[in-house]
Amino acid sequence: MAGQARVLYDFEGQPGTSELSIVTGEVLTVTSKDVGEGWWEGSNQRGVSGIFPAAYVEAIEQNYNAPPAMPPPPLPQIYVEENVAPAIQQQQSQYDDDWDDDWDDDVSEANQGSNPGNPAAGGRSNSDVGSALDVNMAGLKLGDGKGTVRKNLNRFSHFVKTGGEAYILGANKVTSTDSDQIHIIETNNGITWAPNPQPYSCVVASPKKESKLKGLKSFIAYQLTPSLNNIQVSRRYKHFDWLHERLVEKFCIIPIPPLPDKQISGRYEEQFIERRRLQLQSFVSRVCDHPILSRSDVWLHFLTCTDAKRWKTGKRKAEKDEVIGAAIFGVVQVPEKSLDPLQLDSQTEAFGRFVQSFDTAVRMMQSNFAEQVKRQQGPYKRDYQRVGQSFRTLGTAMELLETAPLTRALSHTADTYDQIALLCEDQPRLDFEPMGDLLHDYRGLLASFPDIITVHKGALQKRRELERSASEGKTESTVVVRAQQRTDVVSYTLLAEMSYFHQQRVHDFNVAAKIFLQEQITYYQKIVDHLQSTLSQYKDV
Amino acid sequence: MAGQARVLYDFEGQPGTSELSIVTGEVLTVTSKDVGEGWWEGSNQRGVSGIFPAAYVEAIEQNYNAPPAMPPPPLPQIYVEENVAPAIQQQQSQYDDDWDDDWDDDVSEANQGSNPGNPAAGGRSNSDVGSALDVNMAGLKLGDGKGTVRKNLNRFSHFVKTGGEAYILGANKVTSTDSDQIHIIETNNGITWAPNPQPYSCVVASPKKESKLKGLKSFIAYQLTPSLNNIQVSRRYKHFDWLHERLVEKFCIIPIPPLPDKQISGRYEEQFIERRRLQLQSFVSRVCDHPILSRSDVWLHFLTCTDAKRWKTGKRKAEKDEVIGAAIFGVVQVPEKSLDPLQLDSQTEAFGRFVQSFDTAVRMMQSNFAEQVKRQQGPYKRDYQRVGQSFRTLGTAMELLETAPLTRALSHTADTYDQIALLCEDQPRLDFEPMGDLLHDYRGLLASFPDIITVHKGALQKRRELERSASEGKTESTVVVRAQQRTDVVSYTLLAEMSYFHQQRVHDFNVAAKIFLQEQITYYQKIVDHLQSTLSQYKDV
Repeated sequence: MAGQARVLYDFEGQPGTSELSIVTGEVLTVTSKDVGEGWWEGSNQRGVSGIFPAAYVEAIEQNYNAPPAMPPPPLPQIYVEENVAPAIQQQQSQYDDDWDDDWDDDVSEANQGSNPGNPAAGGRSNSDVGSALDVNMAGLKLGDGKGTVRKNLNRFSHFVKTGGEAYILGANKVTSTDSDQIHIIETNNGITWAPNPQPYSCVVASPKKESKLKGLKSFIAYQLTPSLNNIQVSRRYKHFDWLHERLVEKFCIIPIPPLPDKQISGRYEEQFIERRRLQLQSFVSRVCDHPILSRSDVWLHFLTCTDAKRWKTGKRKAEKDEVIGAAIFGVVQVPEKSLDPLQLDSQTEAFGRFVQSFDTAVRMMQSNFAEQVKRQQGPYKRDYQRVGQSFRTLGTAMELLETAPLTRALSHTADTYDQIALLCEDQPRLDFEPMGDLLHDYRGLLASFPDIITVHKGALQKRRELERSASEGKTESTVVVRAQQRTDVVSYTLLAEMSYFHQQRVHDFNVAAKIFLQEQITYYQKIVDHLQSTLSQYKDV
Repeated sequence: MAGQARVLYDFEGQPGTSELSIVTGEVLTVTSKDVGEGWWEGSNQRGVSGIFPAAYVEAIEQNYNAPPAMPPPPLPQIYVEENVAPAIQQQQSQYDDDWDDDWDDDVSEANQGSNPGNPAAGGRSNSDVGSALDVNMAGLKLGDGKGTVRKNLNRFSHFVKTGGEAYILGANKVTSTDSDQIHIIETNNGITWAPNPQPYSCVVASPKKESKLKGLKSFIAYQLTPSLNNIQVSRRYKHFDWLHERLVEKFCIIPIPPLPDKQISGRYEEQFIERRRLQLQSFVSRVCDHPILSRSDVWLHFLTCTDAKRWKTGKRKAEKDEVIGAAIFGVVQVPEKSLDPLQLDSQTEAFGRFVQSFDTAVRMMQSNFAEQVKRQQGPYKRDYQRVGQSFRTLGTAMELLETAPLTRALSHTADTYDQIALLCEDQPRLDFEPMGDLLHDYRGLLASFPDIITVHKGALQKRRELERSASEGKTESTVVVRAQQRTDVVSYTLLAEMSYFHQQRVHDFNVAAKIFLQEQITYYQKIVDHLQSTLSQYKDV
């Protein structure tokens, strides 16, 4: 898929490589997005072509005459493990009624590839594939948009589409139960979500390859054990996908942690599966930790349901949930104190600037760290091996004369550098990749904030409209008072989520930086130990 | 200078770079030798072009109809500091009579570049330059040949040209004094040079930029202080160059340590000058340590003469020395025991194989280590800086909200990686470069052995000719006996030098590997320390 892209950050290509130096603001012609993880290929306006980090540019969307009236609902990202025909099967299962059948009678996508002659394994009509493709294309377009915070900041209509306007005007009626209620409190730490009185956690265990129909159908299932009840449930990626969609739909005010990215499998299948498990563990933990998400019905259903029939009921109930979008404000209980709109303006503006700048930082770090992984597994490893090879060739030449302490020591040194090369190749799994996973989470979380800020901004604006209208005698003051109260509800939810986000951010980056540094220390210490051991071989020479 | 080159070792170019993968035996067209330290540019026979390590190939010499009847005498390598018109001035001063004038009245080559309008600074006629160029070209040709051990192994005529044949036949008469005598002894360690009864060392101090004629002429002078007398002498590179030529001429049986290579100045002038000093120190120490070289008149003259007049006398005497080439065998005193020619054959053949294989290993290590220096000063450094930059941008984004322990810790981490980047850039000076200097010395030493082996082989062959001739009654037995004794002298010198070379080799590589590993340990330990200090910043978060 070619197109154009605008450069967001300067990037200086390394001389002697095919890297293209790019300058902020420049428009590039993208010739390939299939270069490899994190790199695109293209040319600048002077006709120089080369590769550059995809994260440093922003794809310029084609203008289809007019912008779409309403952005499609966010679709979860595509997961390669469960997809054979690229990304189609998976999306489809969410938009037709196959889910329940699927639950009991899985079509094995994994086997489709290896059994091309078996028509039963395919099992979808062409028309289905066509409609799924449409949905999928919409999802991809939004996916592009989601990656850049700036663009979404101005997408004002989101306020209307989520039902925010209707809510401020008191137009939507929601039937809610006590268990739906969301409480916001004021503490010494400011405005926060009321904590979950029964906090819990959940362990995602190493996934198993399961199969049905005598092995004809196979898939990977993740085993989740919540501390709530200690009962293990088995979930496939598509269940995560369905759940994620529900959460996004329901909580327009809370950034839903992202699922792992579509990803070509890693160098070693085991390492790839283990990393995927860690990424899903991170998603699960983030939902469990969140005072509101962790108590939502759909999540608890996902986490605890072990029975196929009850699953079906719960699934349909969740899909029919009316407390979604801005309707959720109807169940939020906030402190009585009214908020100062002017102060809110400056608070949310500052927060918006922070989100943008933090997003830039996260993208840059993610790109740099992903690059570092490749370097360590490629050139760095080879360089250590070349040093090793140098010592080995030297030792071998000297052995033509005699095997002596020196030749043995040289050969030991060669082995040592070969071992260091392997350490170097493996190391990113322990430092750069885990940090990369955290950054992936934060890119997902940050991508939601512009819409959330937009909803809030829309509410404040509507309130001002009503206030003006009332001052002109066109609107009853009781309507304005209620609108003010409702706007405060919207503001309180934003403040509560901002507060939660900051708390998590400080905690997450503190822990991640510590782990990163500790693993780096361990790595370099191991190198020191290896070298010291080989140095001792020269004592007898 | 383009031409063709044969690939000696496989080299795999890194994908995505301009490196060309080359395969042993392949013939390349060389398009440029000016790519940068250690790299050449060219294309293979499939038309693919790129750069490759010069050390992995062997230049194919142009065939001037017939091979030269006599190879020109080895010329010392060219030194950039004292040369402006490439390599011409320096060579010339050895072949005309300017030396003595030069000694008192230096033409400053350093100033020639900066004073192009000053004709006095040039001071050479075109015809001089022409003849000097011829000599220089011959030197370059030999230089190419010297680099590859294989080629020279068959250059048999060297035996005749050095006067080896004349010596075996008893045809050359040498007038020698007692002080000229060279003694070879048999000890428990085999056949060795008699040790120098008064061993000494010499310190090469940091060079000074000296100037004459009110600063119009300036040059770099190295201060040498031998422990013999503790009197400092000042020597310029061209004096080293003259000395080196005398030693090569005189000691056809001893590999003369090479002078530092022609070299583009380093990143920092100070570092370059310091490295050059270390390289000259290594040359001086190798001569001082050698039981024979350290006692030679020309060396002692170079090391101790402080008076311009005596310098001139000593210089002329050295240039008229008759005990050069094979004539030196006439002053060698060997044990009485005669040697077994068959055993010598297998000993020297094994040694020849070792020299070839050791040379290959040294070239590979030298190339790999030079490459590693570039990597650490380029991409590795940049990579550490990018990690630092990632942390810095993250901290800066978070500081939009507040300056907190976390933002301070992140900023400290950024500083830490910047410091590690500088460590990484500087490190080669302490490990890869010193090892590279040792490898340079050994390439020079190894390059001399094929000729030395050839002289020995020629002597054995001549002896066998005479033995055959005697058995046919064509030669008197007394002639044969004397020829056998003389051949033994040649063999003893080779055995003594082989023994000395092995002893030095084991010592040098043991010491160098230890220093290399110790410096690598210190480097990685410093990284650990830096990281530990930054990790501690996260305690308060």
